[in-house]
Amino acid sequence: MQAEIITIGDELLIGQVVDTNSAWMAQRLNEAGVKVIRKSTVGDHPEHMLDAISKGMERSDLVLLTGGLGPTKDDRTRDVLCRFFDCGLVTNQAVLDGLERYFGARGRAVSDTNRDQARVPEKCTAIFNHHGTAPGMWFEDGGHILVSMPGVPYEMKAMMDGFVIPQLRERFALPHVVHYTITTIGIPESHLSDLLSTWEQKLPNRYALAYLPSPGLVRLRLSCYDAHAVEQAEMLQLLEEMKQLVQSYLFSTGEQLPEQIIGEMLRIRQHTISLAESCTGGFISHLITSVPGSSIWYMGSSISYANEVKTTFLGVDSSVIESKGAVSEEVAKAMAEGIRAKLSTTWSLATTGIAGPGGGSPEKPVGTVWIALSGPNGTVTKLCRFGDNRLRNIQMTAMTAFKMLRDAMEA
Amino acid sequence: MQAEIITIGDELLIGQVVDTNSAWMAQRLNEAGVKVIRKSTVGDHPEHMLDAISKGMERSDLVLLTGGLGPTKDDRTRDVLCRFFDCGLVTNQAVLDGLERYFGARGRAVSDTNRDQARVPEKCTAIFNHHGTAPGMWFEDGGHILVSMPGVPYEMKAMMDGFVIPQLRERFALPHVVHYTITTIGIPESHLSDLLSTWEQKLPNRYALAYLPSPGLVRLRLSCYDAHAVEQAEMLQLLEEMKQLVQSYLFSTGEQLPEQIIGEMLRIRQHTISLAESCTGGFISHLITSVPGSSIWYMGSSISYANEVKTTFLGVDSSVIESKGAVSEEVAKAMAEGIRAKLSTTWSLATTGIAGPGGGSPEKPVGTVWIALSGPNGTVTKLCRFGDNRLRNIQMTAMTAFKMLRDAMEA
Repeated sequence: MQAEIITIGDELLIGQVVDTNSAWMAQRLNEAGVKVIRKSTVGDHPEHMLDAISKGMERSDLVLLTGGLGPTKDDRTRDVLCRFFDCGLVTNQAVLDGLERYFGARGRAVSDTNRDQARVPEKCTAIFNHHGTAPGMWFEDGGHILVSMPGVPYEMKAMMDGFVIPQLRERFALPHVVHYTITTIGIPESHLSDLLSTWEQKLPNRYALAYLPSPGLVRLRLSCYDAHAVEQAEMLQLLEEMKQLVQSYLFSTGEQLPEQIIGEMLRIRQHTISLAESCTGGFISHLITSVPGSSIWYMGSSISYANEVKTTFLGVDSSVIESKGAVSEEVAKAMAEGIRAKLSTTWSLATTGIAGPGGGSPEKPVGTVWIALSGPNGTVTKLCRFGDNRLRNIQMTAMTAFKMLRDAMEA
Repeated sequence: MQAEIITIGDELLIGQVVDTNSAWMAQRLNEAGVKVIRKSTVGDHPEHMLDAISKGMERSDLVLLTGGLGPTKDDRTRDVLCRFFDCGLVTNQAVLDGLERYFGARGRAVSDTNRDQARVPEKCTAIFNHHGTAPGMWFEDGGHILVSMPGVPYEMKAMMDGFVIPQLRERFALPHVVHYTITTIGIPESHLSDLLSTWEQKLPNRYALAYLPSPGLVRLRLSCYDAHAVEQAEMLQLLEEMKQLVQSYLFSTGEQLPEQIIGEMLRIRQHTISLAESCTGGFISHLITSVPGSSIWYMGSSISYANEVKTTFLGVDSSVIESKGAVSEEVAKAMAEGIRAKLSTTWSLATTGIAGPGGGSPEKPVGTVWIALSGPNGTVTKLCRFGDNRLRNIQMTAMTAFKMLRDAMEA
């Protein structure tokens, strides 16, 4: 099965928004054994949309559209699909009921504009939108499938995972593609590649290894594109070899995010955590609390940009800050131990550093970060020297802290 | 002048890499008055590349290609361009000299593989690559222009700014495009559209209005596509009208993010801020500290998931938590006032709510959030009823809190 992705919206063509949807969709399709052969972006212009859709439907078995489904006048996808499939609009009662629940829960009435969103092309199957107001639409025509989804990433993602991918798997004999993913932290992509290249070259043809970097971590995805023909033992053997080669950087196996892994490890052990963040400014707390149920293992944090917060809330000795500097091993250690004692948690993490772009000095350049982890067996610290990108320094610090915590819990 | 962008590479079609090049290029072209009407991505597959190139050259005055110019066998753009323009390769002495300087400066000889990169299609003008080894190529054919550039972002950007854009400006009378952006908070896209639709319908043809929603906010972009012919007064008048119509939801004018606006407002006033976050779990602190220089206006935060943190760090009366519940106006108010007093800041924000998916009750369903803002004129509170998506509830709370703060500072 060959697919293509068409993203719609003037904002994509003037460069105001980077299209991250299509990369995410391509990943999901790829995992399901669907090959993406092309991506296109057109503006909110009916003739351009029609052209892209008709070319796509000629070339590919599956065409996925995102965007142009909002309730406003610059959203034209629905009308273009009516033209392309030569049909009119009908009100879909299930969608309308959903809109009434959606706005009711928010204490608002359904406006006429929103009521209009319950009107869908006669020839489509409506896909319920659990997170927004515009339904998705599934069309079939001459053996080709077209699916139109909203451009809002979390609305689109929920439809892909909840409906589109399961439908494709159920109805078509997709090749049996198996992916194994591991997450590494603390090693750049190019160094990982050096570690793995000899092994990678010897991989049988039906396997492919992909490097998927995001800030502070690199995921490695080993894919077998003909898993029907392969013994599971062979795949597990290769996976084991790969894990061995990157062992000291290995964070986790599987698709879960580091904060999900950390949460799960804490939950299973009935451990708790608190944080004292300086240079990360709340980012680690945000990651930890983005996981549902985190109130079980997460107690709280103190974020201390001003030194007085370090002394007032965490009991850090102000003479230590003066003599060693706020960015020092001693202060990181005192912060971690201070918050752990105050909130009586099993573990605590502390960060203090120079995220940049300002604040660097020859001895402590931008990117210098101290991380401390305090736990049942005492406190360990780590000095990191990251780069000059503020946001990236924050992200790298968070991932490195998670790696320290994971290693300590595993020990 | 109409343009399209074609990005080439298998890595873009399996979702391994997010294409940020094309958004950047589109921005630059748009600023120069060149309208981008389409973007396409194809893999390293000659027939697919040829198809995309020939369609692009039919449709558009200018086709910009990136990718597929490396020295390895999976880089096929140059050969495909020779086929398309029906010509052979010739060694370009200036490019070869440049390669010798490039490798000479790095203490290396030019390899045969790299020497081959100095061979360019006869019919093109080579574009010198100041940051890498693959030259760009500029072709003209029947009034259409095709420019091929490397996919490495900083190599491509240097060619765009150093050669392509200046050439286009010099040789063509490009129109003058002007964009104005405003940010609104607290109103969904559909309701904004209801507010603006009458006005929008009366906009002269040369204007376009785009709605750009992201979690918790909607940006409105008014574009004038023929600013040469228009008095600036006309544009400013329209912008003023638009701002009037959305006035109570208006957050800011321009492209800056809410946290940048907040930081700038605090900095100018020499005000400071502290935060007491519960349901937002550090996200607001993270946004505030993502802005360079925020250590000037931001002192610190207490993140209190556990009730004991609210009493210990913020001095919230535990009997109030017991009688009113942690998610209550009284607790939000006490949190804001507690952190403001402890850290002696001009302003403080507090959040307490049920982010979900668990923790809801009939009286306080998931999505119920209390926000409190404490400042020189006392404390104000706001009850929000968001939806059932945890991350979105966190984001919406942050944006709503920023709006409360902005309004109070403006008052």
